[in-house]
Amino acid sequence: MPSEFEIIERYFNWPSPGAVLGVGDDAALVRAGPGMDLAVATDMLVAGRHFPRDTDPARLGHKALAVNLSDLAAMGAHPRWALLALALPEADEAWLRAFAQGLAALARAHGVDLVGGDTTHGPLNVCVTVMGEVPDGAALRRDGAKAGDDVWVSGTLGDAALALADLQQQVRLAPQEAAAVLPRLETPTPRVALGMALRGIAHAAIDVSDGLAADLGHVLKRSGVAATIELARLPLSDALRARLADERAAGWILGGGDDYELCFTAPAGVREVIEDLGRDVGVPVTRIGRVDAGAGLTVLDGDGRPLRLAKAGFDHFG
Amino acid sequence: MPSEFEIIERYFNWPSPGAVLGVGDDAALVRAGPGMDLAVATDMLVAGRHFPRDTDPARLGHKALAVNLSDLAAMGAHPRWALLALALPEADEAWLRAFAQGLAALARAHGVDLVGGDTTHGPLNVCVTVMGEVPDGAALRRDGAKAGDDVWVSGTLGDAALALADLQQQVRLAPQEAAAVLPRLETPTPRVALGMALRGIAHAAIDVSDGLAADLGHVLKRSGVAATIELARLPLSDALRARLADERAAGWILGGGDDYELCFTAPAGVREVIEDLGRDVGVPVTRIGRVDAGAGLTVLDGDGRPLRLAKAGFDHFG
Repeated sequence: MPSEFEIIERYFNWPSPGAVLGVGDDAALVRAGPGMDLAVATDMLVAGRHFPRDTDPARLGHKALAVNLSDLAAMGAHPRWALLALALPEADEAWLRAFAQGLAALARAHGVDLVGGDTTHGPLNVCVTVMGEVPDGAALRRDGAKAGDDVWVSGTLGDAALALADLQQQVRLAPQEAAAVLPRLETPTPRVALGMALRGIAHAAIDVSDGLAADLGHVLKRSGVAATIELARLPLSDALRARLADERAAGWILGGGDDYELCFTAPAGVREVIEDLGRDVGVPVTRIGRVDAGAGLTVLDGDGRPLRLAKAGFDHFG
Repeated sequence: MPSEFEIIERYFNWPSPGAVLGVGDDAALVRAGPGMDLAVATDMLVAGRHFPRDTDPARLGHKALAVNLSDLAAMGAHPRWALLALALPEADEAWLRAFAQGLAALARAHGVDLVGGDTTHGPLNVCVTVMGEVPDGAALRRDGAKAGDDVWVSGTLGDAALALADLQQQVRLAPQEAAAVLPRLETPTPRVALGMALRGIAHAAIDVSDGLAADLGHVLKRSGVAATIELARLPLSDALRARLADERAAGWILGGGDDYELCFTAPAGVREVIEDLGRDVGVPVTRIGRVDAGAGLTVLDGDGRPLRLAKAGFDHFG
């Protein structure tokens, strides 16, 4: 069995052209550009809770980084560096190679250097920390939504929840439907370019990781405002749209986790700007409602009646 | 059972006076001072491997941060910010309160802000990431040792290993001996002030977490040099000195983990400077040997004969 030192040397000692000092010392050294703040986030993925124990390791490597990059995207930050802490029940070399390749491919695609980390024995647990740059004062925070703002969301909602329902045999998707939604669960795409493009345009942003209702709720609470969104306007994949009659559909759409889309608010005056920049970065953006004075989230169904939201959001601890 | 959101609000949402934005958004925002590099390290502690499952939670909170601050100390960095990712089998409020207090007390003592993190269900796992500032070019790296340097170590070696042997009933310490060495295992003291004071003086540094032989070995390998140290010069506590006749003693001293002392090299011309700054920061420093041209570590016993080092170092993965 390789030692921790050998594991790091073999699989995780990548070049770090964007760092002052990468893997191999007590700490990494990085330097943000002049006038830049550093955005920092960490997410821990636990086997059996956030992913099945037999998850394909390359996809797991991708996802562990992707969920963190999604946090940076929601701040409008430019991802630069990552650290990986990994607990493994055994040092399976084929598993490690594939995991590292999955992580590396996404890191390379975003110009992110893996600058450090830790490898140890233990129940499978992947903890990634990411750092990115954002110009001083330009970060997209949760507390900036204003009454009168539009509410927007990127991509489509609920696909990861639908894929999970399929994997758990709670629904039966046709093969082409499964092929469409499964990557949303297993290899989500962080909306990095969209987040950066929204600097100076969006008033507030969050990434949808615990379900739209819960995550938009955080924005409203921290901004001290209310919002009304319309179920009929929420962007859906064909697979999900085909199941709108299913009584669980609203739960997948509003409460399903793992969407990793951006939900953001912006003044009505920049609607065309936002549609243009969505086209520019290749990510559909949809206006789904409006921010008002007050508190709380109202979701209107197809007939304009408020939905009950009791269990719409889920919580990774609950 | 409280949700993740409630756990963070109750126990981990501390003020962050030194951050641009602390806990509660998608990412934290921090800003290094002008001319400062950011040193970043992460360490994952797994229940049953790095600590017994029934470890006192306040001590665990302390240790999880301490081992990370020790990495920053070994870079000569000034600790500023930390993130905590925590997997818990159950949301035990008394446990969480004590854990948070232990972490907070050490963080406050070093002026470190907890700026973010993640809390989730899972086998007990504590992953802390720390960030600190170090002036551009002033970091104490592993690759700077030069032939002719003295080798130094702070504090005493092997106490944590001896304490672990006592807990595992491999030795029987007298109560006052156990009281002296147990805190070295459970609530280690990161040598932060010493590390910062060694900027511009030491050529290379590492923290002793896997045993002196292994950790000094990393410095030698990365610096492309050899070293000879003398067992008789290694700084030892009374409890360990009383067990030098035990055939396991060299293993505890040279191969015991969890010392969290600093091992560093510096030119002979600064011996008095180093002794003075050790006194200034209140940490004993001891000259234990010399760096030479070549490769590898030689440890001389009391008669000047080389010791065999086959199993001296241990590895958290091995």
